[in-house]
Amino acid sequence: TDEKKYGYANRGMTLEEDINETNAYYLAHRIAVIHKKPTPVQIVQVDYPHRSAAVIKEAYFKTPSTTDYNGVYKGRYIDFEAKETRNETSFPLKNIHEHQIRHIRDVIDCGGISFLIIRFAKSEEIFLLEGKYLLQFWDRMKAGGRKSIKKEEIAAFGHRIPLGIRPRIDYIRIIDSIYRDILCP
Amino acid sequence: TDEKKYGYANRGMTLEEDINETNAYYLAHRIAVIHKKPTPVQIVQVDYPHRSAAVIKEAYFKTPSTTDYNGVYKGRYIDFEAKETRNETSFPLKNIHEHQIRHIRDVIDCGGISFLIIRFAKSEEIFLLEGKYLLQFWDRMKAGGRKSIKKEEIAAFGHRIPLGIRPRIDYIRIIDSIYRDILCP
Ligand SMILES: [Mg+2]
Ligand SMILES: [Mg+2]
Repeated sequence: TDEKKYGYANRGMTLEEDINETNAYYLAHRIAVIHKKPTPVQIVQVDYPHRSAAVIKEAYFKTPSTTDYNGVYKGRYIDFEAKETRNETSFPLKNIHEHQIRHIRDVIDCGGISFLIIRFAKSEEIFLLEGKYLLQFWDRMKAGGRKSIKKEEIAAFGHRIPLGIRPRIDYIRIIDSIYRDILCP
Repeated sequence: TDEKKYGYANRGMTLEEDINETNAYYLAHRIAVIHKKPTPVQIVQVDYPHRSAAVIKEAYFKTPSTTDYNGVYKGRYIDFEAKETRNETSFPLKNIHEHQIRHIRDVIDCGGISFLIIRFAKSEEIFLLEGKYLLQFWDRMKAGGRKSIKKEEIAAFGHRIPLGIRPRIDYIRIIDSIYRDILCP
């Protein structure tokens, strides 16, 4: 239904908007430069009307091959995906694409800081879960285990991010505490 | 003319393709994870046909607010723009957008590694120029100076990248030599 569709869209926007606002705060205060990547689109047909802007007339959404956000904090590469779920007790791993997992592995292998920001929409709880733990839960699924991460597991292995005013979702504070030793001065 | 248009497109593709191939090499060899960002598009109208993929029916190209490529090498954030010119003696600064300059400043402020890869199409010479020098030439222009960077200046302040086979444009080798001291182990 349309209601369902809009529900989804709104939920998606909310976390994304909060994170975009947070990133704008970090940028304005010279704390970090983190941007959302543009939605990847396969362009099929473009019209070039006389004296006006080119119009894309046919294009398709492509499955993203990386994560949504990346950038720099204290010299280090930061890379994350933001996901919301209406599930109240666990985070279903079907929310993550196989090639995003591949990308997260690549980033970690090259010394990047990788994580997931997960919001439980109903309870409005937000967690940061490091990429290395996501990979462990993914591998558990691949080995025949559960297809989701329990909320208690996320709370145990991850870090709760309190919702703030400015910035709204202060994930850099968490990164600062976890990675204190490797951040460049 | 169409010839001119295709000429442009090809030239654009060539450097981009060479860099994409280079990045694929780095990724396959676990050297670095660098991706080209998707072209930013403003989506206006989307059709959802029954039982088939959503079709974007109206969209426009947006001016990019950041650079084309970013990623991670030895834990550090890497950020660059790739540009070609048919000019034989200098690189016109009109090839760079004001907000890309803003972005380059932001990245440098946060400890990221920022640079430009410039190809002189006629002579097929390729240079890496660090962001900090680009900013100096930009500021010179803003102060009323020349609106381009002379090729000799690029050769003097930058680093020539020899065209190779695998990888084609080995810019990481240059980064390795310039930033040896700050790269994470
Ligand atoms: Mg996403
Ligand atoms: Mg470009």
